[in-house]
Amino acid sequence: MYAPGDVRVEERPDPAITAPTDAIIRLAATCVCGSDLWTWRGTDPVTQPTPMGHEYVGIVEEAGAEVRNIKPGQFVVGSFMASDNTCPICQAGYQSRCANVQFVGGAQAQMLRVPLADGTLVATQGIPAGTLVPDLLAASDVLGTAWFGAVAADAGPGKTVAVVGDGAVGLLAVLAARQLGAERIIAMSRHEPRQKLALEFGATDIVTERGDEGVAQVRELAGGLGAHSVIEAVGTQESMMQAIRSARAGGHVGYVGVAHGVTLPGEELFYAEVHLLGGPAPVRRFLPHLIGLIESQTINPGKVFDLDLPLSEAAEGYRAMDERRAIKALLRP
Amino acid sequence: MYAPGDVRVEERPDPAITAPTDAIIRLAATCVCGSDLWTWRGTDPVTQPTPMGHEYVGIVEEAGAEVRNIKPGQFVVGSFMASDNTCPICQAGYQSRCANVQFVGGAQAQMLRVPLADGTLVATQGIPAGTLVPDLLAASDVLGTAWFGAVAADAGPGKTVAVVGDGAVGLLAVLAARQLGAERIIAMSRHEPRQKLALEFGATDIVTERGDEGVAQVRELAGGLGAHSVIEAVGTQESMMQAIRSARAGGHVGYVGVAHGVTLPGEELFYAEVHLLGGPAPVRRFLPHLIGLIESQTINPGKVFDLDLPLSEAAEGYRAMDERRAIKALLRP
Repeated sequence: MYAPGDVRVEERPDPAITAPTDAIIRLAATCVCGSDLWTWRGTDPVTQPTPMGHEYVGIVEEAGAEVRNIKPGQFVVGSFMASDNTCPICQAGYQSRCANVQFVGGAQAQMLRVPLADGTLVATQGIPAGTLVPDLLAASDVLGTAWFGAVAADAGPGKTVAVVGDGAVGLLAVLAARQLGAERIIAMSRHEPRQKLALEFGATDIVTERGDEGVAQVRELAGGLGAHSVIEAVGTQESMMQAIRSARAGGHVGYVGVAHGVTLPGEELFYAEVHLLGGPAPVRRFLPHLIGLIESQTINPGKVFDLDLPLSEAAEGYRAMDERRAIKALLRP
Repeated sequence: MYAPGDVRVEERPDPAITAPTDAIIRLAATCVCGSDLWTWRGTDPVTQPTPMGHEYVGIVEEAGAEVRNIKPGQFVVGSFMASDNTCPICQAGYQSRCANVQFVGGAQAQMLRVPLADGTLVATQGIPAGTLVPDLLAASDVLGTAWFGAVAADAGPGKTVAVVGDGAVGLLAVLAARQLGAERIIAMSRHEPRQKLALEFGATDIVTERGDEGVAQVRELAGGLGAHSVIEAVGTQESMMQAIRSARAGGHVGYVGVAHGVTLPGEELFYAEVHLLGGPAPVRRFLPHLIGLIESQTINPGKVFDLDLPLSEAAEGYRAMDERRAIKALLRP
């Protein structure tokens, strides 16, 4: 990314092991994230040409001298946050805030260096069929993020769950809520292809209204009291307030849209009396379970990829997502 | 309260049953709340002379025709929010946001009408000894609120708990965290008599610094990672940010100080990745347990009353608390 709207695919030197806990991965697939669009659109600044991408699956090419569990030749899924998976924060399930956390960037590439390989990467059972690659790639971020949102929102049996946002994360939050046993799942979307996928993933209701009207609809669908669980998957002021106001007193809001320009009014929050939990998803916590669900073909999260491009056409992936022509673009290195 | 700083004790008509679910209580004791000081100080407006007070214990004088469980002659403890205790919100433990909630005001008086008596009031075992009355009165709000803060902050065995605020609620949050089995309890206070009471209630550490320095001290005492649990018992921007910044990633902040002029920065909150839960405490959820602890003399929360006045001197109770000469003023009708 050279500047907003200016993504180029260039030859760069192969990454090399720089710490003995690193591994080098040859990517099977990568993709464009909704959060990459903040940069594409100029909301997040670009101060210098920056390698983009943080979602990845592939085969381990090389492992550092201190890597114990990950072996060359394994097919692995990782997360955008490298974690040691041993510190007290990781042990509590918040690997995205590991005491030794490192951001994994530059995954829109053929090769990638992953720090803290033992703590970060999870190997699949053998080399997966090619048809599973998009599903596993989804687990690397959007599914893991959606799952965290659903868990943070306490989605589960008997619950009415509302999802704010119909991007890949919002749609997969519907899938996560369904897997977690939610009784009723309300997808908030005004785009027909996305509504369709939401229904396929397990939504029971679609609400097309936004803002106060959307809130009123959700509250009414949820017995007049508001939803037990609301998953926020956008990151704007409007979406956060829509999520908080859609939840019942004592309910839970899980927010995973990367916050941009959000300020929460303390008094309203106080009297809303809802649980709030959000942030960069500790995808690593959920990876073993999600990989299992994918290997058994219980879930097909890869359906969010409705555009499949060679890596060389990465810029078109950004454009298509920015213009909402595509939900999510998969890139083949 | 006629105006900020102007509290008068006047003869008023006795309250009467207005709904068949009401009860009339003859108060054994009442008190001044930290939240009453927002009005005393002019932060909350006074538009007309307003009966004050919302903490009460006493003997049931009369019960409405539809009151089933509460009987005249019983000694009862209630909360500032009247709740039916049967709606789904109450059943989930959020009685302060009951679908039929009513605020109970005007408790700084000899007699009080309590709506939804069956859902709101909890009777003690017989008429308690006079020495227990301050303890039971504390359960009516400050102890129940502190307990909710501690539960919302997930205080429990093995946890390091920090308490922001050394008013009656903050001090009783120390007691609650101790009862809930917390391992280490850090009281943030710079006032010696309050530090002393905090230590008596079970604090293991005292931090006198505030703001960034206070945060740094708490984080260091909590293994460099921040506290597992933080209870916020003030309600200002500074105290909320101090609480959020003192918590570790994945930790819990329970906030019970009534928010005034607070706005939470969304980006910081996102990356802090802490659980937030707060609001008007559902005291009713905890009353049976708290009354049991008091009747067995396991806890002595009434120690927060360091000023005992006849109701006729209510104004002095406000003044003493405002000037921090007293932690909490008990008023005898």
